[in-house]
Amino acid sequence: MTAATNVVGEAARALRRVIVESVSPEVDAGRFAIKRIVGDELRVRADIYADGHDSVGARLLWRREDERTWNEAPMRLDNNDRWEGRFKLEKLGRYFYSVVAWMDAFGSWSKDLKKRADAGQDIVVDVRVGAEIVREAAGRARGDDAKQLAEIAAKLKDLAKKDGKTALAISQNAELALLVNTWRDRTSDTRYERELAVVVDPEKARFSTWYELFPRSVTTDPKRHGTFKDVIDRLPYVAGMGFDILYMPPIHPIGRSERKGKNNSTTPAADDTGSPWAIGAKEGGHKAIHEQLGTLEEFQTLVAKARELGIDIALDIAFQCAPDHPYVKEHRDWFRERPDGTVQYAENPPKKYQDIYPFNFESAGARELWAELKSVFDYWIAHGVRVFRVDNPHTKPFAFWEWVIGEVKKEHPETIFLSEAFTRPKVMYQLAKLGFTQSYTYFAWKNSSFELTEYFEEMKDFGVFEYFRPNLWPNTPDILNEYLQKSGRAGFMTRLILAGTLSASYGIYGPAYELCEGRPVREGSEEYLDSEKYQIRVWDIHNPNSLRDLITHVNRIRKNSPALQQMLGLAFHPVDNSQLIAYSKVTEDRSNMILVVVNLDPHNRQAGWVNVDVKKLGLGSEESYQVHDLLTDARYVWHGSRNFVDLNPSVLPAHIFQVHSIG
Amino acid sequence: MTAATNVVGEAARALRRVIVESVSPEVDAGRFAIKRIVGDELRVRADIYADGHDSVGARLLWRREDERTWNEAPMRLDNNDRWEGRFKLEKLGRYFYSVVAWMDAFGSWSKDLKKRADAGQDIVVDVRVGAEIVREAAGRARGDDAKQLAEIAAKLKDLAKKDGKTALAISQNAELALLVNTWRDRTSDTRYERELAVVVDPEKARFSTWYELFPRSVTTDPKRHGTFKDVIDRLPYVAGMGFDILYMPPIHPIGRSERKGKNNSTTPAADDTGSPWAIGAKEGGHKAIHEQLGTLEEFQTLVAKARELGIDIALDIAFQCAPDHPYVKEHRDWFRERPDGTVQYAENPPKKYQDIYPFNFESAGARELWAELKSVFDYWIAHGVRVFRVDNPHTKPFAFWEWVIGEVKKEHPETIFLSEAFTRPKVMYQLAKLGFTQSYTYFAWKNSSFELTEYFEEMKDFGVFEYFRPNLWPNTPDILNEYLQKSGRAGFMTRLILAGTLSASYGIYGPAYELCEGRPVREGSEEYLDSEKYQIRVWDIHNPNSLRDLITHVNRIRKNSPALQQMLGLAFHPVDNSQLIAYSKVTEDRSNMILVVVNLDPHNRQAGWVNVDVKKLGLGSEESYQVHDLLTDARYVWHGSRNFVDLNPSVLPAHIFQVHSIG
Repeated sequence: MTAATNVVGEAARALRRVIVESVSPEVDAGRFAIKRIVGDELRVRADIYADGHDSVGARLLWRREDERTWNEAPMRLDNNDRWEGRFKLEKLGRYFYSVVAWMDAFGSWSKDLKKRADAGQDIVVDVRVGAEIVREAAGRARGDDAKQLAEIAAKLKDLAKKDGKTALAISQNAELALLVNTWRDRTSDTRYERELAVVVDPEKARFSTWYELFPRSVTTDPKRHGTFKDVIDRLPYVAGMGFDILYMPPIHPIGRSERKGKNNSTTPAADDTGSPWAIGAKEGGHKAIHEQLGTLEEFQTLVAKARELGIDIALDIAFQCAPDHPYVKEHRDWFRERPDGTVQYAENPPKKYQDIYPFNFESAGARELWAELKSVFDYWIAHGVRVFRVDNPHTKPFAFWEWVIGEVKKEHPETIFLSEAFTRPKVMYQLAKLGFTQSYTYFAWKNSSFELTEYFEEMKDFGVFEYFRPNLWPNTPDILNEYLQKSGRAGFMTRLILAGTLSASYGIYGPAYELCEGRPVREGSEEYLDSEKYQIRVWDIHNPNSLRDLITHVNRIRKNSPALQQMLGLAFHPVDNSQLIAYSKVTEDRSNMILVVVNLDPHNRQAGWVNVDVKKLGLGSEESYQVHDLLTDARYVWHGSRNFVDLNPSVLPAHIFQVHSIG
Repeated sequence: MTAATNVVGEAARALRRVIVESVSPEVDAGRFAIKRIVGDELRVRADIYADGHDSVGARLLWRREDERTWNEAPMRLDNNDRWEGRFKLEKLGRYFYSVVAWMDAFGSWSKDLKKRADAGQDIVVDVRVGAEIVREAAGRARGDDAKQLAEIAAKLKDLAKKDGKTALAISQNAELALLVNTWRDRTSDTRYERELAVVVDPEKARFSTWYELFPRSVTTDPKRHGTFKDVIDRLPYVAGMGFDILYMPPIHPIGRSERKGKNNSTTPAADDTGSPWAIGAKEGGHKAIHEQLGTLEEFQTLVAKARELGIDIALDIAFQCAPDHPYVKEHRDWFRERPDGTVQYAENPPKKYQDIYPFNFESAGARELWAELKSVFDYWIAHGVRVFRVDNPHTKPFAFWEWVIGEVKKEHPETIFLSEAFTRPKVMYQLAKLGFTQSYTYFAWKNSSFELTEYFEEMKDFGVFEYFRPNLWPNTPDILNEYLQKSGRAGFMTRLILAGTLSASYGIYGPAYELCEGRPVREGSEEYLDSEKYQIRVWDIHNPNSLRDLITHVNRIRKNSPALQQMLGLAFHPVDNSQLIAYSKVTEDRSNMILVVVNLDPHNRQAGWVNVDVKKLGLGSEESYQVHDLLTDARYVWHGSRNFVDLNPSVLPAHIFQVHSIG
């Protein structure tokens, strides 16, 4: 390309004098969608500016996936060339947004004309400049607008010499400005170079309270396998504590060959039940139900009864097979073969998991495999399920998840996928970017004030909350961390309050949790003794030692506190005692402000001075404010930043304050 | 697109299991080039990872603009899935870089095989898996590689049952690993989605020391107009102080109509010289020389003589015209016309600049205008100039600058463009992104410790130093800030040391600066009294009050201190006295560490405790180290973070310490 021809293209571009950049929110240059929930207003910001001193106009563009044309929302200049606009996400599904901006010739003219007139300058020629701007807009306009603009242009031209004052008044007319801008020359508009996506999820995607139980353990006799009917009877207990998602480990037929016995023994007894994650037997695979749990009809009854109590049933989707799974016979090409002709089992050398066959996503049959796995989600959705906890997604290809979640949510935007990937942070974030609605976190291993603060600050600083929704679990059937093993009941209280207030979504594996089960299979292990993964356990949910009441209380506070139902507005406040942690959550409009102080030491009373960052709460540094403990109903007046707390873990290890500005 | 057909494409993508993201440096998703200087090694980092636990391989790709194929440089895993590679920028011009990564099947196999063998497991079948990996690579390889790989594959297969130990040894061979990876199946490579650009500039683009003078004032008699010959005689003075760029305001014929008189008077005397920025008269325009300065030949002699002393002559390019400029007659279409038929003069309502006509970059004749303006740069480059200070670029279209700088640098990559845009920060950064080599800053208005720290921290945090090279000017012919007006000689020392140590590039407008000229045209104005913009000034450069020696000293320190020749590694250190500021600059390898402490109060002695952030200097919190004041040659032993300083502005307002770790 010669310089001469190049000039032509560049001169054309020069007409687009406005720059639109740094649009936010935006993830990885628009490669991935951000996430919101239905009813949210999406605030979009952008740097918008031009050369020189002329005025600029801008509009936020947005449309639903199924709309062909863009809707427009106003944008206004905040400061430092940063503009802001908002639009409402009324429906589930995917929306797109972008920005358009232009040189506002009329705006520049009317602004300058006023300055000239104010300085007492002659404006005859300048009024004619404006008349010309309006005349050009008239030439582009249609219908009544064209007529109106032409009349005003003529009038301005006429007034130029005769009546500058009236011309000036016309120049300041906001409706005229809007009309001229509507009929601007759009060929020199600057469109932001990318169209960004936002996935609009149901409310529970952001704010949810999970309870995990093994349905086979909903029984009073270890010899009697619990059933869906038993789970139905247990629903009022779960709902009563304030949970709104009930998650069950895989409910499918359990493999027999290579079955694991109690406490992960490789020499099971004849009546050992096996692990629910060893999916598939001659009775069926991922679309079948373990017959001791009940029938498909009973499962659907459970889903319906739960929904009546505001609870969604979440299924565990673990894409792996026991050696007995029908897929292994019917679709040998979906598995890797070893040179000796056997099927490749799962490994993490030198560990071998001969009871589990992973799928080979790179096989020649991958096309059918992907479609079949999608049909597993479709099957359970057709039977009323809309929440899935996905087991180990990080051991399957990223592209598979992007495809399958995208396809499912196209048809069922109400679906929620929880990613159970306990792996390196970037892999966890990638899975969230690709479409997982919520994600497990490292919370279970973050116990000190330093660890918790660092972890949440890092997520905040890296902007991951735009797409990564943390779901905090103080325990899972796989994770009984050292803190819980050694903390006693107080530690279970502490970790529950942390989970429920640090994150908008959290969950517990019960009844182990509320009954403070803390015995590991052996010293140094995070596995439970007599783990339900391998056997039926009978739990006495009426044990007076249960945390049931505290859980009920915390979940009620969550329900009544909008600040706790989101991840934005989280801030940590220094405390001079490292056994205490303090943090606040605040709604965007500051109408709800929660300040939590927790004693992390489960054995000793701890006191100290909290250094409240009052600015984060919109309070002055010398201002008094009331802190109302929602756990005890006590109210205190605090003043400025330094305030004293004293928490006894054997009574209650935390304050959950609602902060009220006084006067 | 149906789900079924979609699966095909997605399954193909699934083979690309590796993610490559967050490549740095990268500006605005690769829209703009980063900047480096010739000889630099460019460090490129990227997040690279895959699903599961398999090994990943990666290479940094790079090429010069004129190369068709990519060169490869190794990348190594740093931590947390962040990889790093480097390549050297040997030549001026533009380079591109990107990243490629892949699943390293051989690496996974050899790593796992070792773990299995170490655990005493049977590896017969596993060795055969590896033999298959090598055999497949052999199938893709050519020539000797194919033969060698086939032999090794056969050998491994043979050894599987016979000699696991030898097979294991082969599996750990690094050369074999490289060979297998060279012949990997590249169809499943992941290429980073963008190719990023780096502009490689001459060394002075990053590290330069500017001196501005009005050539007509290089005289001993206000009636005798200084000439290029006088400037030649002044060169040893300028070079002696350590400056390496000598910048002159416009050297073109000065317009006569609407000429401004002394102190910007609109009623000039007959012998008033006019402003050099009123470019163009009947004698010529942007390619002509004001005849009182000399001839084109004399100008070229000046350029050559300066170069002998290591000095580049910088010209001032101001794209605007005096009413007498030949363009106004010859290319009336390059200017805007007012409705009354007159040419539109420059305005910032209600201010009018009738002596200046701006170009209309959006005119019908814009194509020719752009080409003509480029030819102005070409003309002066042909006559030896390679540094341009561009006047008010923010009042011309962004697209023009991207085009003209890009075109000029394609042919002359040694060219340096300094942007004189004192406007809103995002506009200034945009001009730097579009191609300007260096930029003026707000430094002249940042005088307190808080202002300076905030300004530089902000630039650091926003990552602007990847493309924005600040050039600090404590004064210019347009800016005599209040601090200098009121500070006396001490303040001039302070501001010089700040400029020369905060930034790798700085400049002064002299001899006004070294002679501590601080008189404004009137109280509250930043204009000089008897400004050289409108008249010839005679300066006594031999005045004993001159800062000449200090400037010489500071510039020598700059020349000997690599840490001061770059913007990376700048850090501020708190001081308990807000009249003091402390900051350090450190080379990447910490071989050169400079710690500067400045007393910002030009009137009073100030003392206080510096809280040295010893980590930034690679020192332990309890370590002793020597600080060697390069200004006074005094040496002190400091210990840990808290250290005392006491600075008397009437002696020397600053320490410029070189920091030496002891033992």
